[in-house]
Amino acid sequence: MKTRDFKSIVSKYEVVFFDAYGVLKNYNGLIPGIEGTIRHLMENGIDFYVLTNDASRSPKDLAASYQTLGIKEITEHKIISSGMLAREYLRFKVKKGTVTYLGTSKSAHYIETLGLNILSIRQLDLDNLDDINAIVLLDDEGFDWKRDVNKVINLLRKKNIPVIVANTDFAYPVTDEEVAIAIGGISDMVEMIVGKRFIKFGKPDSQMFMFAYERILEARNVSKDKILMVGDTLKTDILGGNKFGIDTVLVLSGNTLPDQANFLIRSTGIIPNFICEDAVIRRKGP
Amino acid sequence: MKTRDFKSIVSKYEVVFFDAYGVLKNYNGLIPGIEGTIRHLMENGIDFYVLTNDASRSPKDLAASYQTLGIKEITEHKIISSGMLAREYLRFKVKKGTVTYLGTSKSAHYIETLGLNILSIRQLDLDNLDDINAIVLLDDEGFDWKRDVNKVINLLRKKNIPVIVANTDFAYPVTDEEVAIAIGGISDMVEMIVGKRFIKFGKPDSQMFMFAYERILEARNVSKDKILMVGDTLKTDILGGNKFGIDTVLVLSGNTLPDQANFLIRSTGIIPNFICEDAVIRRKGP
Amino acid sequence: MKTRDFKSIVSKYEVVFFDAYGVLKNYNGLIPGIEGTIRHLMENGIDFYVLTNDASRSPKDLAASYQTLGIKEITEHKIISSGMLAREYLRFKVKKGTVTYLGTSKSAHYIETLGLNILSIRQLDLDNLDDINAIVLLDDEGFDWKRDVNKVINLLRKKNIPVIVANTDFAYPVTDEEVAIAIGGISDMVEMIVGKRFIKFGKPDSQMFMFAYERILEARNVSKDKILMVGDTLKTDILGGNKFGIDTVLVLSGNTLPDQANFLIRSTGIIPNFICEDAVIRRKGP
Amino acid sequence: MKTRDFKSIVSKYEVVFFDAYGVLKNYNGLIPGIEGTIRHLMENGIDFYVLTNDASRSPKDLAASYQTLGIKEITEHKIISSGMLAREYLRFKVKKGTVTYLGTSKSAHYIETLGLNILSIRQLDLDNLDDINAIVLLDDEGFDWKRDVNKVINLLRKKNIPVIVANTDFAYPVTDEEVAIAIGGISDMVEMIVGKRFIKFGKPDSQMFMFAYERILEARNVSKDKILMVGDTLKTDILGGNKFGIDTVLVLSGNTLPDQANFLIRSTGIIPNFICEDAVIRRKGP
Repeated sequence: MKTRDFKSIVSKYEVVFFDAYGVLKNYNGLIPGIEGTIRHLMENGIDFYVLTNDASRSPKDLAASYQTLGIKEITEHKIISSGMLAREYLRFKVKKGTVTYLGTSKSAHYIETLGLNILSIRQLDLDNLDDINAIVLLDDEGFDWKRDVNKVINLLRKKNIPVIVANTDFAYPVTDEEVAIAIGGISDMVEMIVGKRFIKFGKPDSQMFMFAYERILEARNVSKDKILMVGDTLKTDILGGNKFGIDTVLVLSGNTLPDQANFLIRSTGIIPNFICEDAVIRRKGP
Repeated sequence: MKTRDFKSIVSKYEVVFFDAYGVLKNYNGLIPGIEGTIRHLMENGIDFYVLTNDASRSPKDLAASYQTLGIKEITEHKIISSGMLAREYLRFKVKKGTVTYLGTSKSAHYIETLGLNILSIRQLDLDNLDDINAIVLLDDEGFDWKRDVNKVINLLRKKNIPVIVANTDFAYPVTDEEVAIAIGGISDMVEMIVGKRFIKFGKPDSQMFMFAYERILEARNVSKDKILMVGDTLKTDILGGNKFGIDTVLVLSGNTLPDQANFLIRSTGIIPNFICEDAVIRRKGP
Repeated sequence: MKTRDFKSIVSKYEVVFFDAYGVLKNYNGLIPGIEGTIRHLMENGIDFYVLTNDASRSPKDLAASYQTLGIKEITEHKIISSGMLAREYLRFKVKKGTVTYLGTSKSAHYIETLGLNILSIRQLDLDNLDDINAIVLLDDEGFDWKRDVNKVINLLRKKNIPVIVANTDFAYPVTDEEVAIAIGGISDMVEMIVGKRFIKFGKPDSQMFMFAYERILEARNVSKDKILMVGDTLKTDILGGNKFGIDTVLVLSGNTLPDQANFLIRSTGIIPNFICEDAVIRRKGP
Repeated sequence: MKTRDFKSIVSKYEVVFFDAYGVLKNYNGLIPGIEGTIRHLMENGIDFYVLTNDASRSPKDLAASYQTLGIKEITEHKIISSGMLAREYLRFKVKKGTVTYLGTSKSAHYIETLGLNILSIRQLDLDNLDDINAIVLLDDEGFDWKRDVNKVINLLRKKNIPVIVANTDFAYPVTDEEVAIAIGGISDMVEMIVGKRFIKFGKPDSQMFMFAYERILEARNVSKDKILMVGDTLKTDILGGNKFGIDTVLVLSGNTLPDQANFLIRSTGIIPNFICEDAVIRRKGP
């Protein structure tokens, strides 16, 4: 497989959408050298955003995690998370009452300040559901899996309310070798058991890309031709970018291993415009 | 089940999205009285669009079918079809070469004038695929199912190209009692057999709603709060409208039978804001 | 919907297969009057077996639960559980090494005495997998869901071993109103996340019926024509019985509510030979 | 990947189950040298059967195709086809009336002589369904796909009858490079569109293996330990054999290409006991 140099590709675009995990950072911190990429984009007037299937923390907290690591250019404004779409849904579709959630209190940020009452599933009383108008699945932490996932099942048997899933990923890496089940995986199990259709936000769904595009358009006009999606996962980043109509780069610094890339592209039919080893741009010598 | 009066609901919105089949028309022509609805909207300054999972004919032809039946207010500009999204995809993602298609020559309208060569699957030579850069599934007519669907399978085994599906519906009504398999049904069979991921356009996918919303925004600013989706099918119209963040009306004049509506809402968890017998607004007596 | 009298149906068969939950017992104990049914069968020389998707307890313990409630005719020999099939699999396909499991120590009964080492997933060391040759999913209790299901995921990423699922049910009733997720539900989530194919035992799979049939044939020759499956669930009991080629009775004393039965039969296409309110046979008055 | 010598493996078993296509023959005729394997088995007292997902021709016709090619040891008695299971189903579950079918008149062999009327879907009158009690999907030929598959859809909307699928394969090879959609692929499309559950026969389902096992047991007693399944496809032959509890050999002379075998075994978790280049046993030199 022939990979391309990321720097030569990126220079043809006005805006870059980055996936977070496997592109900008990994379990160990920043992808070494990635700060050079951000600097290169800034110096060349190329705008960028981080599109992440993450509802565990607020955009502000997500941005802070980059700033702490030394990339202060990744501000809250640069972060587009799937949690933000769940929040949008509630804003337009759930105007009153109480929303219950599965996740940490940090993740509950996404559903605060909407004028709705919020209630952790832990505190939900299954015999008192009159005021409960929606449930949001935010994060895989902050609750007891056995007790509280069963509680979700029974809530949905007793009351027909919308279920909003704020992260469609099945799993996420926790070390070099190990992964953990994400709320998207739990969500699919619950959906299958109760037999209902949930409202799910996150790549590859177009709504994520649209939300980012709208943010760009607030400031200036950019054609989709001039936007590049950079991701490490065919089924989310590349499929979603392709469908939205923008060019896509698969990088091999995350989920997709170099020796599997061609096979996976061929077997899934999800075809990136370009393949790069990583999204790192190194400054030339002194 | 208590249904609501459509007229009292619609007056609170600035824009209405109508599904076509089962809402405005059926196998027999217009839903009787539906012209009163269009007139009512026009008189009250409520804008409207028709969102249809249809790539069998151009927006112009689709509009003409209403005009012939006496509703001249449904112009080409009012039609948003899933075929238009397939066309958008090709415009941004397939810049050269030949696109082959499954469908009638009428449906091929959607892929003409993009500067690409187009070729019916009937004429495709499986031994000469160098120039073939995409395949679009447009309509269930215009080809020999056995010969040409097998040809699609073998095309995709020989060359890894994007497959664009311009209509996600599985079936469509042809008489009061009978349906026919739509290209979306054929497409899912092919996808399963080749094991690849196709690019699919049509409700409930958000891209359809976004495309319509963008058309509105070209003329004026409207909040999603002020848009109403009217449809007869929970899994496409209502699920899609809900997810996009707009209010939804389920009408019982099409796919969803009155005695099944409550059961289906409860068992699928797809909850419309309102249920109406139909979308007809009758003018009051003299 | 017209239901039939169970007694008049059962008299035409030589053997009856009963589902356990919803037919013989429920969350509250025995279905009232069901002991009359067992007595009637014994008196009329009709043999019977209990076919249950259950691997939480040994056949002996399962039988004891009926005996305690007063039906001493349900002996260990009458019980065919999905756990027994998992055990058969290991007997033939895993001849040495260690088998790890998800479940209680009671459920581990099914994998003991096979000459294999057994190890609860709780005690598994992910850095020392050399001797681990299979994993069996037995019960939804006996482990920490978050920690140990994640451990299963990572085990399967590190070592390619068969996964045996000893109960395919997604959920089971715990009170009149509430259910709990069964190991079959957890299993499907794990299967989806790791993308592998598991070996699953339980109705509607034919192997369960075959196992029961073989037990009959050890004692005497019975044609499939003379066996009746009695169950409360279309997708397991009735589908499985039909496919195996035996007659089926749907009873309305469990999962399938009387007002939904006809709709469900029509919409799933799973058609029982008979429908009865329950499987109770009451002795005529004095 | 290290492959093993088939001859050294097979000598430890008393019975061998062969998949047909990709193991004994391919689009071009017999796999070269395979007649040596059959001869070796005969000479060493190893019994064998051919287990094939095929309902296009009778066991007699299937056997004749080997005999014509020079292997006269493959008699009708040696053939176990999925069509035979469909026939068994009808024998036990459909006792009267008319069965309609999709397939050639050759494939209709499987449903003849059961005392039922049979009717090609071509001749079915959708306005006269009173006597129709089942439909069997037999073969991808013998009907007009567009007209007659639509007819099946509408039949199932009008009358709730069991649908029996006599071959679960999605596709079959027609030349070195090309495949054709099998009736199993069409069947899955129809099942999805009508939303019903069909009764499907064929590997990997256990019923196929059980049927073959019962045929052996008619003649003599053989433990499952002493049976070997030989196949070229992980998801049918190997998964089915494993689940049934017998040892399995993956051969690389058909569907599974040598350079993909390890990757596929790892990614599907379907693990054969052995891998061999082919099932050919060559006679040693003079």
